[in-house]
Amino acid sequence: MHIDAVDFFYLAMPEVLDVGDGSQDVLLVRVEAGGYEGWGECEASPLTSIASLIAPMSHSACHPVLSSILGEKLESAEDIDAISRRTRARSFDLLQTAHTLSGIDIAMWDLLGRRFEEPVWKLLGQERSMGKRPYASVLFGDTPEETRLRGARAVESGFRAVKFGWQGFGTQSLRDDVDQLAAAREGVGEAELMIDAAMAWGSDPAPAIERAAALEEFHVLFLEEPFIPGADRAYRTLRGALTNVKIAAGEGSHSEEMALNMLDSANVDYLQIDAGRIGGITTASRVARATANRGATYLNHTFTSHLALSASLQPYVGDATSTWCEYPLDSQPVSRDLTVETLAVDADGLVRVPDSPGLGLTINKEVVGRYAVNVEITIDGDSVFRSPFIEPAVRLA
Amino acid sequence: MHIDAVDFFYLAMPEVLDVGDGSQDVLLVRVEAGGYEGWGECEASPLTSIASLIAPMSHSACHPVLSSILGEKLESAEDIDAISRRTRARSFDLLQTAHTLSGIDIAMWDLLGRRFEEPVWKLLGQERSMGKRPYASVLFGDTPEETRLRGARAVESGFRAVKFGWQGFGTQSLRDDVDQLAAAREGVGEAELMIDAAMAWGSDPAPAIERAAALEEFHVLFLEEPFIPGADRAYRTLRGALTNVKIAAGEGSHSEEMALNMLDSANVDYLQIDAGRIGGITTASRVARATANRGATYLNHTFTSHLALSASLQPYVGDATSTWCEYPLDSQPVSRDLTVETLAVDADGLVRVPDSPGLGLTINKEVVGRYAVNVEITIDGDSVFRSPFIEPAVRLA
Repeated sequence: MHIDAVDFFYLAMPEVLDVGDGSQDVLLVRVEAGGYEGWGECEASPLTSIASLIAPMSHSACHPVLSSILGEKLESAEDIDAISRRTRARSFDLLQTAHTLSGIDIAMWDLLGRRFEEPVWKLLGQERSMGKRPYASVLFGDTPEETRLRGARAVESGFRAVKFGWQGFGTQSLRDDVDQLAAAREGVGEAELMIDAAMAWGSDPAPAIERAAALEEFHVLFLEEPFIPGADRAYRTLRGALTNVKIAAGEGSHSEEMALNMLDSANVDYLQIDAGRIGGITTASRVARATANRGATYLNHTFTSHLALSASLQPYVGDATSTWCEYPLDSQPVSRDLTVETLAVDADGLVRVPDSPGLGLTINKEVVGRYAVNVEITIDGDSVFRSPFIEPAVRLA
Repeated sequence: MHIDAVDFFYLAMPEVLDVGDGSQDVLLVRVEAGGYEGWGECEASPLTSIASLIAPMSHSACHPVLSSILGEKLESAEDIDAISRRTRARSFDLLQTAHTLSGIDIAMWDLLGRRFEEPVWKLLGQERSMGKRPYASVLFGDTPEETRLRGARAVESGFRAVKFGWQGFGTQSLRDDVDQLAAAREGVGEAELMIDAAMAWGSDPAPAIERAAALEEFHVLFLEEPFIPGADRAYRTLRGALTNVKIAAGEGSHSEEMALNMLDSANVDYLQIDAGRIGGITTASRVARATANRGATYLNHTFTSHLALSASLQPYVGDATSTWCEYPLDSQPVSRDLTVETLAVDADGLVRVPDSPGLGLTINKEVVGRYAVNVEITIDGDSVFRSPFIEPAVRLA
């Protein structure tokens, strides 16, 4: 069984707004091998990742990503691992590679699961799949009152934890931030409260430390991404200034090494990994195992579709020490409706990955057709990429 | 003076070979503002960087790079710094950004230098420009004998240091590697010898340590990039196993934080920065100052044109503690002939950046025309990028 085809589908809402909502477009990936197909998603700039897929070679460490995938043997987890390593090595100087590889890697795991009729988490060597308690990820409101209402609404819909973020938090005045924190706590009541600082403070720990007392006062479980990736000193400094509030980060990781340095050097408590950015399920799983071994807590990072959600949960559903998961709310239709099935919150208030083969989800081809963005790239007059059309569904597996 | 135009010129040799020679294509950048123009170069996959320049926005942290540049005020070093920070923030989730920004940033510095009739190094606040002693960067030969000859030839042409790399070094048998090291030392005689391991050992220190005795025996000045970026533990372990041989790395850095962690956490001795990858002269200069403050040694990383060489030297020509520079030899014509002037090795055996304004080099427009690769990208039938044509030279500045 060798890889016969890799197709990238660029989907987007008719209008994409300049807001912190990452669910407005989708880069969907289909891999075909031996009569089976698998689906994945890159959390990436679609056009840039498409270009990296087929860009002409620059030198031996700057190959187009596709050249390391097509025709490769795909019969086992070891094959996927080999393809992943080979792709990174051959495209080392092509910066976009990890984002592009991610969707392909996820699709390869989905395909392998369908081929062997096993869910991906089992192929990853985990003994069981445990439900995770979802926290709702919502944007701060434009006003504290709106924030309070959003928090209350999330709790009313059954969430026992709510994470607020973006919309200027951290860059406005201390007073405004404290008002937002107070409103968030009031809205969610006794539920857990998390805050996403969205790298508001760059690599400067001072403004973060200024807000430490309020974060403690409103019993924030964790403060997410106070600084940019690699600002290890700032992370360590803030760590020392907090008592009960933990630090979460890692979504920007695009390699195993970068993620593990967040634990070893930045000393974060929760490592949040987006399987659609770090290089897919292969890399995410290695990081999940290493995180558990270090006594830290692995979490998914997901803000788009349930295909992305299933992919991001698979690496740690077997880890009993990590009980939470990020759960996208209010996604745009292009993301929300991408799959026929969704990962609903069950009667116990838990989210479980499907027990069906692969990632356990069916792509809604009507949605793929409806939101398709058609790209064509020509080089010296030759067409090197043209958006594929989604066929009427003929499911082979 | 605001930025009126940004043009990307993709140039390539008619045939690009699958070898470790990064000079086979060029992504040249022209910035125009207030009647002046400046030129820069991205060390990047050209098509991927072009796509990132004009990719449709995905969300508020995934803008196309161009949208943070066009129309911005460009009258001072502070303006460039502001543009650089703004671009990184608005395109944070677009992984390719730093590579794309690099060429634009370099072109902005060149433009500002032409506007104020000052060399870039002076605009950067340095008091003087010192010559650097070049080391020739050459590939290992296919045989030790070929390696020996290449070393001897480099020394005969006046180089007092030669760096060998690639062509399987590190991944072949210990015996083969030792033979290559012996041949390299024999070829260069009393000159300094550096070795580029080209990340041969991933994140595993064992094979590097196996070769430590030979590296010491043949008096290697530094071993470059034994591991992949972020493999800090491996770097520290190898550091402890070496006596006189130093470690150099950093060329893969695409942010200030990533570069400084090579010093703080990986403990490298020489920090090698490619201005065409890290985000341009702005970021490289911040890193150069921080490196000197930490007592480590900053070096350029350059394997392509003399435009790239001038850009990569500007950040540290004022630093007396760093005396070497990387100097590309055997570049392909598309890189070698890109500029009318070159940075020749002077009678003292030193390389100096020009004293003329900006980067001090004139683009050879005939070469730009000869090697042009024409790209067109359409989205839903609308042309969003079409390779610009180079006009007959009308130099305004």
